Amino acid sequence: MIKAGIIGATGYVGQELVRILYHHPEVEIKVLSSKNHNNQVYNSIYENFNKICEMMCDESDLETIANQLDIVFLTLPHGVTSKLLTDSILKNVKVIDLSADFRLKSVELCEEWYNIKHNNKDLLNKAVYGLSEWKRKQIRVSRLITNPGCYPTCALLCLLPLIKEGILEVDNIIIDAKSGVSGAGRSLTLTTHFTECNESIKAYNVTSHRHTPEIEQQLSELHGNEISVTFTPHLLPINRGILCTCYGNLKNSYSYDEIKHIYEKYYHNEFFIRLTRQGKFPETKWVKGSNYCDIGFTLHKRAGKIIIIGAIDNLIKGAAGQAVQNMNLMFSLEENMGLKSIPMFPV
Amino acid sequence: MIKAGIIGATGYVGQELVRILYHHPEVEIKVLSSKNHNNQVYNSIYENFNKICEMMCDESDLETIANQLDIVFLTLPHGVTSKLLTDSILKNVKVIDLSADFRLKSVELCEEWYNIKHNNKDLLNKAVYGLSEWKRKQIRVSRLITNPGCYPTCALLCLLPLIKEGILEVDNIIIDAKSGVSGAGRSLTLTTHFTECNESIKAYNVTSHRHTPEIEQQLSELHGNEISVTFTPHLLPINRGILCTCYGNLKNSYSYDEIKHIYEKYYHNEFFIRLTRQGKFPETKWVKGSNYCDIGFTLHKRAGKIIIIGAIDNLIKGAAGQAVQNMNLMFSLEENMGLKSIPMFPV
Amino acid sequence: MIKAGIIGATGYVGQELVRILYHHPEVEIKVLSSKNHNNQVYNSIYENFNKICEMMCDESDLETIANQLDIVFLTLPHGVTSKLLTDSILKNVKVIDLSADFRLKSVELCEEWYNIKHNNKDLLNKAVYGLSEWKRKQIRVSRLITNPGCYPTCALLCLLPLIKEGILEVDNIIIDAKSGVSGAGRSLTLTTHFTECNESIKAYNVTSHRHTPEIEQQLSELHGNEISVTFTPHLLPINRGILCTCYGNLKNSYSYDEIKHIYEKYYHNEFFIRLTRQGKFPETKWVKGSNYCDIGFTLHKRAGKIIIIGAIDNLIKGAAGQAVQNMNLMFSLEENMGLKSIPMFPV
Amino acid sequence: MIKAGIIGATGYVGQELVRILYHHPEVEIKVLSSKNHNNQVYNSIYENFNKICEMMCDESDLETIANQLDIVFLTLPHGVTSKLLTDSILKNVKVIDLSADFRLKSVELCEEWYNIKHNNKDLLNKAVYGLSEWKRKQIRVSRLITNPGCYPTCALLCLLPLIKEGILEVDNIIIDAKSGVSGAGRSLTLTTHFTECNESIKAYNVTSHRHTPEIEQQLSELHGNEISVTFTPHLLPINRGILCTCYGNLKNSYSYDEIKHIYEKYYHNEFFIRLTRQGKFPETKWVKGSNYCDIGFTLHKRAGKIIIIGAIDNLIKGAAGQAVQNMNLMFSLEENMGLKSIPMFPV
Repeated sequence: MIKAGIIGATGYVGQELVRILYHHPEVEIKVLSSKNHNNQVYNSIYENFNKICEMMCDESDLETIANQLDIVFLTLPHGVTSKLLTDSILKNVKVIDLSADFRLKSVELCEEWYNIKHNNKDLLNKAVYGLSEWKRKQIRVSRLITNPGCYPTCALLCLLPLIKEGILEVDNIIIDAKSGVSGAGRSLTLTTHFTECNESIKAYNVTSHRHTPEIEQQLSELHGNEISVTFTPHLLPINRGILCTCYGNLKNSYSYDEIKHIYEKYYHNEFFIRLTRQGKFPETKWVKGSNYCDIGFTLHKRAGKIIIIGAIDNLIKGAAGQAVQNMNLMFSLEENMGLKSIPMFPV
Repeated sequence: MIKAGIIGATGYVGQELVRILYHHPEVEIKVLSSKNHNNQVYNSIYENFNKICEMMCDESDLETIANQLDIVFLTLPHGVTSKLLTDSILKNVKVIDLSADFRLKSVELCEEWYNIKHNNKDLLNKAVYGLSEWKRKQIRVSRLITNPGCYPTCALLCLLPLIKEGILEVDNIIIDAKSGVSGAGRSLTLTTHFTECNESIKAYNVTSHRHTPEIEQQLSELHGNEISVTFTPHLLPINRGILCTCYGNLKNSYSYDEIKHIYEKYYHNEFFIRLTRQGKFPETKWVKGSNYCDIGFTLHKRAGKIIIIGAIDNLIKGAAGQAVQNMNLMFSLEENMGLKSIPMFPV
Repeated sequence: MIKAGIIGATGYVGQELVRILYHHPEVEIKVLSSKNHNNQVYNSIYENFNKICEMMCDESDLETIANQLDIVFLTLPHGVTSKLLTDSILKNVKVIDLSADFRLKSVELCEEWYNIKHNNKDLLNKAVYGLSEWKRKQIRVSRLITNPGCYPTCALLCLLPLIKEGILEVDNIIIDAKSGVSGAGRSLTLTTHFTECNESIKAYNVTSHRHTPEIEQQLSELHGNEISVTFTPHLLPINRGILCTCYGNLKNSYSYDEIKHIYEKYYHNEFFIRLTRQGKFPETKWVKGSNYCDIGFTLHKRAGKIIIIGAIDNLIKGAAGQAVQNMNLMFSLEENMGLKSIPMFPV
Repeated sequence: MIKAGIIGATGYVGQELVRILYHHPEVEIKVLSSKNHNNQVYNSIYENFNKICEMMCDESDLETIANQLDIVFLTLPHGVTSKLLTDSILKNVKVIDLSADFRLKSVELCEEWYNIKHNNKDLLNKAVYGLSEWKRKQIRVSRLITNPGCYPTCALLCLLPLIKEGILEVDNIIIDAKSGVSGAGRSLTLTTHFTECNESIKAYNVTSHRHTPEIEQQLSELHGNEISVTFTPHLLPINRGILCTCYGNLKNSYSYDEIKHIYEKYYHNEFFIRLTRQGKFPETKWVKGSNYCDIGFTLHKRAGKIIIIGAIDNLIKGAAGQAVQNMNLMFSLEENMGLKSIPMFPV
């Protein structure tokens, strides 16, 4: 059995990791670390675990537990992991970091967008970007995974096949994204106060959301040249779910079937990626509670555009689920082990 | 493997049965029957099943498939099952009926509350009321289970220990119940039109809801004398969940611990029933997506009352989950097989 | 024009007062006081007032502004008003206090339930309980109104006619109440964090909610003897609205029409109280955005019970609207002036 | 007093018209016509009108009532009005049509997008597109107004100033729009069934929504050349509100202030249009219950793009409110008469 620990176990993503790992046939959770809830029983913080998980939260130190565990999931606030992690820790334990600290390969971008100073550029280079379907080979042999952001996961799975095939013009890519409130976590803010977000919609961090350089980096890396995108996230009054409506200009004229063929080339054998039927588009309800990403598209001939729509459960494929998928890859398990839940509906 | 069929597979309860049974280690779904969706692929009706279940819906006849299956789940509209079912069918296949046709033991009550004529009182007598925790012995040896209604499941699990112990006065029991909209099913009505129920709450079927005699029958049967209850259901703008706030007068003065002792006596070993800590009360969010029933209570000393609150997921413990729990009992499987999902939060 | 000030203008109730008073034909708002938002323009805090209200928030002192205003609305946290208010202030300005400081006539109950020390019992005696329809005469001649709580407003309007007529047994009154989240105000709490309350329902403060003694006091005062009630509030995932489902035992047998006659006796001429048709019950959606209270009832003959259901908009009839109604009475204006908004639907 | 009639008074837009006109100081509602609810009292269909409006619905014939009224609002299904309306009716009564029948000036487009045959092109030419802020002069002298669609109202108010100034490239305009469910009306559909749309988001009618040619027609008319747009509507689980996120490429480089200057040029004196502060963007909650349209924008320098975001209440500025605004213009009343409601929050 793989011995696992979660540091930051009482945030929403941490809790989702506990839920998924708890029934994972090859994993045993050994450590639930939480500074805010030290010495509290986990199910007093999340009562869904009553009569299920009687573990206590502690303040385990990463360095100490590294010797006792096979893998550590870190769901700490941005800027913390990069201070804690060292090469010697990585020698003892595999790490999946769900913060943004290692997502941007350029130290300059890290500082510009996240205000993070990296003492150790070496670790930044070692970290593999854990977009499972596109980085499988590197993930398998890595000891440090930087788990993708929720929006980038959804947007990149929509766009990468078209970038890879070189059929998309790179200067007019727009990602209009919509997310449920759980993406903002459990910390109290006026924005996520029920009466402030219920029955309303707003755009936020317009042109300045930190997931923008993350998306651009991955698109650019695959394409070879710098790609800029316009990314506008919106806050929806729902608990879970991300929908990305992506717009781009095609270099040439293509038929629906030609584009479909491209998506099938990359995703037909992917367990967690589902293409919708022609004329059907993803809805967040059909992926909720699962690790699936649904993708659909249409051509807007008059405007020479393609519209690609993707949907994920932000806490699963956009966070905890993809992290476990990456863990499965790192330990040579079946990639979908512990992740086969059928989306729940209506929920 | 148990060969199972679902007749009425495209309602919400039917769909939840498919979801649960699909991953049940001892079950193979053989038939998905649906009059309205004959010859359609199941995942075109419920797209959460894309790339998961490629079965077709058909119009299978109960009599025909009885020979080919080990168990049939019937989720048909009230009044239909009682016309279809015969003794000879029951000889060939075990049946769990999720309609109300066999819930009321008295033909008169059936006619009064449901307008159902039973040609075959014999079947009515054979049917075992499938409240798993309280009817386990009879369920194990029965071939016909009448699965409890969603409200009765929650209310009875709250009240039966107190009735059994004879500590509750029987003439002032009030059940103020609140349910999410999925309990009303997938049929279109003005009441369940989004803009008509969203952001509002109402009571409905006040003093006339059909679950009233079902609750009264079970309480009375355990108690020995006729018990009347006042049952008021309310419609909540949420997808899933039932909360029952039950009020009763205690015959004598009891301490919190004495009552707690009673609940523990009946439920301590029950996998699916969880008592909340003192001062904590159930919330539907903590049971969502699971087969658990959470129960908490407090004493209102000044008024000589006890308030008991219960919460379930109406589509699982209140319908499909309890049906599978009953199936497990009927086939001598572990009672919680295929039903161990941890409640999902926030969802 | 009546010169009005609001101290505590940036809470939800304060904001609703601004909205209502802004279009009141006889009122001019002179002061918007808010400690937390001193020197900020009001419409930067509540952007619905953009291009409408350009006033600044200040930290006006009650004593100072008393000389300049005709009426002050106080929406301060519990325990603050009773320290600020003096007889000399009241000589200069009329006061409507929307906190609970003056609601409970007994100093002992104030201390027990609210932990408030009253230095000045005299003020407590002077304060008139502002349940407009039942205290009209006293309100007209009072200079200090203690505005009722949201739950008590709804519950009392349902129960008082029956108490007044003496037809209700007083030892089995149950009020099962449900409220939207705006009742909890704009302060951040885990309970009102979107993902913690959305798509769920829970009871809270069971047997211990501070509105219990307020309801009991008013019922007892009208009845002549002490009345205890069992009051259970629930938190609903909606923005606005309170529904009270009240249960009581009738002393004798009455027909529907006899009870209807009683309600009409008290409410037929009341502008803001509407009785639903027989067989229809209030829903919060039908009163939203208005100062109406809808009331409906039914008899549960088998159980000898009456069930009365009331619905209000908690921020209007349950707070700001009723406060303005009281102001109208205090200044001999038409009682419904500025309050005639038709409930908005669907909203 | 203006004598008004509403034909189609029991749809959501019809009901909103009744609510607004009921308190309009210069209007008297004389006719509420509804085929489905003939001979029913209006407040039995919409109980918010209890004790307020005791009018009956009838099946008034447009031709007959034309002689008795000053204005008729038509909220009939698409394709009906164009069959009913004649020149002789228009001689007797002014008409505001809230269906789409007269919105598209080209008969070909009408047939292509709406499948409507117009016998009378003359009426099509006479109809003035009632986008109040941009067509004020024509509206004032017209007897037939075709009231704009909800999405076009919001999108056009965002885009027209930039088109008018000629600073936007016309070949990359994208409108990513999000609407609450009330826009779909009161007719029952699976899409608007509570459990099917609650807690989810989806795009619908991608590239094929009928508001597309309406938007294009107005942009093209102002610009002089044909403009194509990419318009993607999404369905949100909220009752009311539309948010349009519009993307376009600027022909040159502009500063924020230069663009702000343009918006102020067109909208500074508009009562119902509000520009948000720099760095702030519209949210539907701030316009709910009002006739306001909020507009904000930002420049995405790296991508050479401008992002303009608009928010309206779809039933008011997007339908009934703008219709009354147009009526005010047609009768030389103050344009905001009866429409000054402050947005309600939180609601």
